[in-house]
Amino acid sequence: MAPHTATCSAPVNIAVVKYWGKRDVPLILPTNDSLSVTLDQDHLRSLTSAAADQAWPAGDRLWLNGVEESIGESGRLRTCIDELRRERRALEEKDSSLPKLSTFPLRICSENNFPTAAGLASSASGFAALVSSVSTLFELSSSVSVSELSRIARQGSGSACRSLFGGFVAWQGGEAADGSDSLAVEVAPREHWPELQALICVVSDAKKGTPSTAGMQRSVATSPLLAARIANVVPQRMDTMRKAIAARDFESFADATMQDSNNFHACCLDTSPPIFYMNDVSRAIVALVEELNRASRAAGSGAVAAYTYDAGPNAVLYAPKQNVPLILQLVRHYFPNADFDDTFNLLGAGANASHRGAQEAQPLPEALPQGFNAAVIPVHEAGAVRRLIHTQVGDGPRVLPASECLLNEQGEPIRLQRTKRA
Amino acid sequence: MAPHTATCSAPVNIAVVKYWGKRDVPLILPTNDSLSVTLDQDHLRSLTSAAADQAWPAGDRLWLNGVEESIGESGRLRTCIDELRRERRALEEKDSSLPKLSTFPLRICSENNFPTAAGLASSASGFAALVSSVSTLFELSSSVSVSELSRIARQGSGSACRSLFGGFVAWQGGEAADGSDSLAVEVAPREHWPELQALICVVSDAKKGTPSTAGMQRSVATSPLLAARIANVVPQRMDTMRKAIAARDFESFADATMQDSNNFHACCLDTSPPIFYMNDVSRAIVALVEELNRASRAAGSGAVAAYTYDAGPNAVLYAPKQNVPLILQLVRHYFPNADFDDTFNLLGAGANASHRGAQEAQPLPEALPQGFNAAVIPVHEAGAVRRLIHTQVGDGPRVLPASECLLNEQGEPIRLQRTKRA
Repeated sequence: MAPHTATCSAPVNIAVVKYWGKRDVPLILPTNDSLSVTLDQDHLRSLTSAAADQAWPAGDRLWLNGVEESIGESGRLRTCIDELRRERRALEEKDSSLPKLSTFPLRICSENNFPTAAGLASSASGFAALVSSVSTLFELSSSVSVSELSRIARQGSGSACRSLFGGFVAWQGGEAADGSDSLAVEVAPREHWPELQALICVVSDAKKGTPSTAGMQRSVATSPLLAARIANVVPQRMDTMRKAIAARDFESFADATMQDSNNFHACCLDTSPPIFYMNDVSRAIVALVEELNRASRAAGSGAVAAYTYDAGPNAVLYAPKQNVPLILQLVRHYFPNADFDDTFNLLGAGANASHRGAQEAQPLPEALPQGFNAAVIPVHEAGAVRRLIHTQVGDGPRVLPASECLLNEQGEPIRLQRTKRA
Repeated sequence: MAPHTATCSAPVNIAVVKYWGKRDVPLILPTNDSLSVTLDQDHLRSLTSAAADQAWPAGDRLWLNGVEESIGESGRLRTCIDELRRERRALEEKDSSLPKLSTFPLRICSENNFPTAAGLASSASGFAALVSSVSTLFELSSSVSVSELSRIARQGSGSACRSLFGGFVAWQGGEAADGSDSLAVEVAPREHWPELQALICVVSDAKKGTPSTAGMQRSVATSPLLAARIANVVPQRMDTMRKAIAARDFESFADATMQDSNNFHACCLDTSPPIFYMNDVSRAIVALVEELNRASRAAGSGAVAAYTYDAGPNAVLYAPKQNVPLILQLVRHYFPNADFDDTFNLLGAGANASHRGAQEAQPLPEALPQGFNAAVIPVHEAGAVRRLIHTQVGDGPRVLPASECLLNEQGEPIRLQRTKRA
């Protein structure tokens, strides 16, 4: 009999009100709420297949990007899988006709369509895809809500809970000690604000930054300003952000986004020892966007774009679709030779045309706001920004057809990294 | 008859608990207390002569580093000079035999022995020297205390009030609306902790930073974290710092110094638009000192050095004298070709021997703590740190002999910038 399988993809999300700090480390309960924008899976996604077969050798196995990973008896992967098994077992106890999938060995295989070198954290999309594929395999959709699935994903990786929804998503931090109320909810679906797009600027960095899990707890332990962020700044900001999204008010959305990014990085700097995620290139992008917005506002138009930075030097620039050509051209002028797959054919060489390696120097765009100070930052050396990714608000996890399954009938990945096969 | 003259020098001070934000802009009243270390005038100082003569053309005149500056009818210079005149007039009204210096035209000439290119703010030493020389000219020392002089200097440039004392100095922010209680007091004299030395690392920076006067008010207006700094962080820190200085406890002094620097820069980042003073080289120095301290503490010794940054990329490293050779060698290893006048003859080529331009690559010092991670930062390109200045805790303003007077009998500078003379 063919194994039971399910294949799902799940999106990346980028927070506009940041999660930084746990009040409970094993349960991954945050010190404050957070809010994110889900990005389009056509551009960035984790694809995961889950399969179960009674006949397979006992024990669960997992492959990430072609490399087998250990699940172990405890830890985040084990916690997610066990919770999902528990839900399946509950179904099987109610209906004895159901195949006892909860007792079968599991095989899980996941791939990202973006490389780790893109500097984009994949734990959110990865755990969301894992939870989606296993819950689809276990046919939990009628018994377990998406918010409940997000609660399970949260225990794998905090921000993964927000990748269970499309559009605009809030992770309600919750109050309960057991984390039963710490989960994601939809703030608005993708269709609410489809004009909102994102340009991810992948910045080269010599040094690897402090891992966020350790970093955030160091902040909780040592930063006096983080206490103010948690108590006062974030609650107000969540409110401002919800209103801005509801009203599709980019002015307000932009200010709140940039201020929250800076406030978060300020708390990192206020940590002992201090944590630095932004580098000089990150800051140059800040200065560029601030000057662009200043000039645009002075000329009577609104903010052009908003920057936000996570635990690394990459900039995510949010902008209404009509502003993206301008911001793209500006970034390519000041940061030459960034690799760019032109998803939306802004440059006219065809959709997804690849612009890589040495490229012609890009002039300043003509459509700049009056009074824009072009000397705000210098033209940087080639590759200071390594890559640009143009994407948009996206939908939540997708169930894919069996033809997309990453596992074969023996429960092994259909493709492995060559080094492992040898 | 020869003009009345007085010549004084005044020191630079570097805050270890930072002033950032005014509660009253014209009176220069700060939002919080601050505390600084006075540096040695043998290495860094403003030298100012003040002279008065009834016969000179009416009006006050001022030269700074050979260039005449306008005093004007209002503003910081006018305020300081008028206050000092008021004190002199009070003396003259009590004793009619005194020369009516308060009615004579004033000539003031000031020079720094450190260039503006050193990136060291000179408004503190400059206003302190101005106030010292005019008050010496007006013979106010028996009627006006040094703290009262600091109150006057404060109105020229806030941090100048702390340059009226040597050693360790607190600027008590005060509560009165008229600023009558906002002045500097001595925390401990230079002789209290003479082993404490400083290594100033002048960092090259392409961009000029936000002027602090505007910047701090932007922080007051827009940074939610600054409110927490003012209300909670600084009061506790002042207390910690006073105790550390009293006990000559370098461990505690170092931690408080580094945390306050980071806390201040965190508030700058939390400002809208954000203010960046530290750059990647500044941060590399932070990482170096943090790693050095970590390894030293792990090996059972204490912190080696403490960094602090003002409104610019320069690092001031405080260290007990016995640690300076190690920190100097480390900095010269990772940041080659910094100009260095060896004030204390640490390098053995003679006191004040000049090490400039292309220099031999400096190896890592041998005396490193066990476990020090030499890969913490890379060896930087030549000139990333432009200059090193090795100095120590210093005394307060000095009265100098007439032979040092910078003004001639006509009340003009004895030396002017050539461009002005032409």
